[in-house]
Amino acid sequence: METNLCKNPAKVGFPIPSKVSRTTKPETTLVNVSGVMVGGSDIVIIAGPCVVESQEQLFETARAVKAGGARILRGGAFKPRSSPYNFQGLGEEGLKLLSSVRKEIHLPVVTEVMDTRQVELVASYADMIQIGSRNMQNFPLLKEAGLCGKPVLLKRGMMSTIEEFLLAAEYILNQGNDQVILCERGIRTFETSTRNTLDLSAVPMLKRLSHLPVIVDPSHGTGLRWMVPAMAKAAVAAGADGLIIEVHYKPEEALCDGHQSLNLDEFTRMMTDLEKIAQAVGREISL
Amino acid sequence: METNLCKNPAKVGFPIPSKVSRTTKPETTLVNVSGVMVGGSDIVIIAGPCVVESQEQLFETARAVKAGGARILRGGAFKPRSSPYNFQGLGEEGLKLLSSVRKEIHLPVVTEVMDTRQVELVASYADMIQIGSRNMQNFPLLKEAGLCGKPVLLKRGMMSTIEEFLLAAEYILNQGNDQVILCERGIRTFETSTRNTLDLSAVPMLKRLSHLPVIVDPSHGTGLRWMVPAMAKAAVAAGADGLIIEVHYKPEEALCDGHQSLNLDEFTRMMTDLEKIAQAVGREISL
Amino acid sequence: METNLCKNPAKVGFPIPSKVSRTTKPETTLVNVSGVMVGGSDIVIIAGPCVVESQEQLFETARAVKAGGARILRGGAFKPRSSPYNFQGLGEEGLKLLSSVRKEIHLPVVTEVMDTRQVELVASYADMIQIGSRNMQNFPLLKEAGLCGKPVLLKRGMMSTIEEFLLAAEYILNQGNDQVILCERGIRTFETSTRNTLDLSAVPMLKRLSHLPVIVDPSHGTGLRWMVPAMAKAAVAAGADGLIIEVHYKPEEALCDGHQSLNLDEFTRMMTDLEKIAQAVGREISL
Amino acid sequence: METNLCKNPAKVGFPIPSKVSRTTKPETTLVNVSGVMVGGSDIVIIAGPCVVESQEQLFETARAVKAGGARILRGGAFKPRSSPYNFQGLGEEGLKLLSSVRKEIHLPVVTEVMDTRQVELVASYADMIQIGSRNMQNFPLLKEAGLCGKPVLLKRGMMSTIEEFLLAAEYILNQGNDQVILCERGIRTFETSTRNTLDLSAVPMLKRLSHLPVIVDPSHGTGLRWMVPAMAKAAVAAGADGLIIEVHYKPEEALCDGHQSLNLDEFTRMMTDLEKIAQAVGREISL
Repeated sequence: METNLCKNPAKVGFPIPSKVSRTTKPETTLVNVSGVMVGGSDIVIIAGPCVVESQEQLFETARAVKAGGARILRGGAFKPRSSPYNFQGLGEEGLKLLSSVRKEIHLPVVTEVMDTRQVELVASYADMIQIGSRNMQNFPLLKEAGLCGKPVLLKRGMMSTIEEFLLAAEYILNQGNDQVILCERGIRTFETSTRNTLDLSAVPMLKRLSHLPVIVDPSHGTGLRWMVPAMAKAAVAAGADGLIIEVHYKPEEALCDGHQSLNLDEFTRMMTDLEKIAQAVGREISL
Repeated sequence: METNLCKNPAKVGFPIPSKVSRTTKPETTLVNVSGVMVGGSDIVIIAGPCVVESQEQLFETARAVKAGGARILRGGAFKPRSSPYNFQGLGEEGLKLLSSVRKEIHLPVVTEVMDTRQVELVASYADMIQIGSRNMQNFPLLKEAGLCGKPVLLKRGMMSTIEEFLLAAEYILNQGNDQVILCERGIRTFETSTRNTLDLSAVPMLKRLSHLPVIVDPSHGTGLRWMVPAMAKAAVAAGADGLIIEVHYKPEEALCDGHQSLNLDEFTRMMTDLEKIAQAVGREISL
Repeated sequence: METNLCKNPAKVGFPIPSKVSRTTKPETTLVNVSGVMVGGSDIVIIAGPCVVESQEQLFETARAVKAGGARILRGGAFKPRSSPYNFQGLGEEGLKLLSSVRKEIHLPVVTEVMDTRQVELVASYADMIQIGSRNMQNFPLLKEAGLCGKPVLLKRGMMSTIEEFLLAAEYILNQGNDQVILCERGIRTFETSTRNTLDLSAVPMLKRLSHLPVIVDPSHGTGLRWMVPAMAKAAVAAGADGLIIEVHYKPEEALCDGHQSLNLDEFTRMMTDLEKIAQAVGREISL
Repeated sequence: METNLCKNPAKVGFPIPSKVSRTTKPETTLVNVSGVMVGGSDIVIIAGPCVVESQEQLFETARAVKAGGARILRGGAFKPRSSPYNFQGLGEEGLKLLSSVRKEIHLPVVTEVMDTRQVELVASYADMIQIGSRNMQNFPLLKEAGLCGKPVLLKRGMMSTIEEFLLAAEYILNQGNDQVILCERGIRTFETSTRNTLDLSAVPMLKRLSHLPVIVDPSHGTGLRWMVPAMAKAAVAAGADGLIIEVHYKPEEALCDGHQSLNLDEFTRMMTDLEKIAQAVGREISL
């Protein structure tokens, strides 16, 4: 697919911004997350808890997801919460826990940044910074991410078109940083049986239009633990370069989003299934 | 997944109608389309043109899709078109062509019915009748379909929730006909780069809530020929029991939806890829 | 506004079908519902119960809405219900009740038809037939409506674009019947605090593009009784030619949609407020 | 309506955050924008250009909108733009122009802030700061707005629910600032004939649930200049406490959103019409 570029880009009805466009750069960009390469033939799995809660929680979860085949650890220190009365994350204390577990377990970490004033701080602890859905069009934040010297995991806004998503990435590349991973995480529709509607057609679309790697978040995309493995398999079959999965060592005690987090056994079983799908599409997952 | 029923059905926020519910009937229903069984371990591919145009077009396409592994032929005789000035299909003449090609090629056929007054006619020619998206809540038509004595392929309305989809199927079962296949075909969202947004999470959701087989239409779901194979693979990985694909022997000359129809070579190549995905999820496609 | 036609119709990005287009016919069409003219300077209020339940219910409600200023009576005999287990209406018995109350109260009636086989029957009892949201793209039904010899109230599909709405009306006009009223009744969006999202911008849009009269249904558009008066006023201010309102003499006992039905006092009070808005936009409501 | 509080708040299916809730504070909050009171019987019109371009443009537009009845001047200095290659506003230079025109014309000004690092700067020039749609869930920015000492105009996210909108306002009130105006500005739906779908039902809903004043932005809500007056009238009829309107002295030369900006004559004519609607709902616009 990647050599078969759209001859008539008007088929998607909008111009592709130049720095993210595959027309400008035909080969897929490899994003280097402290040695883990995203965008190559390996499918990269990012896993971990929604939010960093404690040394024990993070350490136990990290050890298990690494054993199961995850290559990057996720965990939130600064959490965007709809309500001011919900747990907002541990802040810098959470960053420190991520940093200490990373050293012990030898897994690069990705964590979210929400405020331009904290980009430097977060980038000093993390191997990759994440810009979440609600900030996909926080343009000052995108510009800072472009200057932070670390790879950026950019999540699609839940209300954002493919065109706007590519333009948001262009803001980052336009500051000189091409180490950007695009993440489909579900869009908002009229359907309410799932938390969001995971738009897997975004995977082949983004891969066709842009040279940036594309991953999928089936945890937020569905909001339902039991559905995560099916959609993870579908994402890899659709051509995703990786996945980001919420895993918790005790989901029923999680401070945030426990209902969509896999437990350690579920994660391990899913990885075995994913390996087969990866092979079926000519790729690998190193378990 | 199918033995792991939702203990708390409130997780989806609505009651499951009793006749379609997997709680009522735990094993998946096998739908028998003149000998082709849908809902078992075989992934069943339905393929053919959007609309029946001529003896040659239908025959050439049917022969090729059968050779490529399709088990059921699709083709529209009565076409729902947004504009009264678009080609509306050949009507009964189209049904006769379907019937003659079916005999020659030995493929069961599915075709759409739009009018309660034509259910008997269409059912007399077709092996399975299709109720299209725009008629998913045409309740008199659903009732007639429940009485027609043939299997029914029910497509999800482009604006319909999972709950409404199951209730529409319940209308058919409530008339005594349990030979119903559910088809996800894309929902309408704010995203415009694809024709619709293919909601693949509907596959595991419907499989969990209902005993009816579930197939996917990636042709209408994306509206983009080049994207059909990627989404077909994703659908099978997500657990679909089959696919319905638009194929035309000369897509550039098609009277309807040529831009989303595969040509014969593209179909054959896609089938080879699908076979691998089917095996990776423990199922088969008999090529 | 009506003399100020869009010079560049491409501003709405689609062609306007010729028979409904205001370019073809600059003056607004007057729809004559047994003597009540819709589309002129009078704002016409259609009111009545969601569904005909009994002689008493229909008679009491009809008498009160007429006294309050309604000019046409609404009431469902054949009801489209999402579930096969919900009350489906009284059928022809309901039509007979409508007919008898109409004679006694001297109010023309509008009622829904869902099945091509029943158009003739419904048209023989009603002064205007209604095609509901779920049937907006039931093309055989639209064609029959075009031949039935009565005015047609066409409701916008809950997920239909303005373009599709106009094309659906074109199906009716294309059969020789230009007595069509367009009705905005709320579209389906992500917002769940209201039953649907009433798209009042459809009013000036449809009035600009088409010569057909446009009315609004704030009862289905909001699903909330207390919100109906505010949105009714807004609809008239936006330029609507009329309203269709659910009113029930005992909403708490209604068999269908009681939560969105006004009681008789609420209806009367709303009408007084509407009269002021009508005057503020240079129109009248004859109370 | 304001004394008729929802007895069963579950009718909207979510809890109302306490500080914004009308249950907590039954009377509508008056927001004082340098002497202009929003939330009382006067309908307050905010008008001005999308973006500050020059001394002449701002001065000419400001003078005219004041003469036409506007009470507050709008104008962007920092502009959120989907593309990094679009004009991003004049920045602090724009703030200085706003400040100088304000002194000369004696109109309070509102302007947008996008970055936590600039809240203090913007608040030092503006009478009210605006948080735009794309930042409605920029939680650090909401917190800073709660501490800035100026009133806040909070626009609804284009795909945010009423619940999320109220929670975003709660973030501001939770910092001790209750001077918050809520602004409906159109949500994103499947409909493409308008730029967004103006959700006027949000007006009575927000007024019922919260004590904060509610205004409407028909310029962004429709994206079509000719439609702005109709929707402005509808907004006032629905109960809005004010409007924010894009006006430009030469719309055809505007650097941003000229197609949705009224010219000076159109603005003046609209105001005359609005005065009548205001009176019809028992309120005033001081022209």
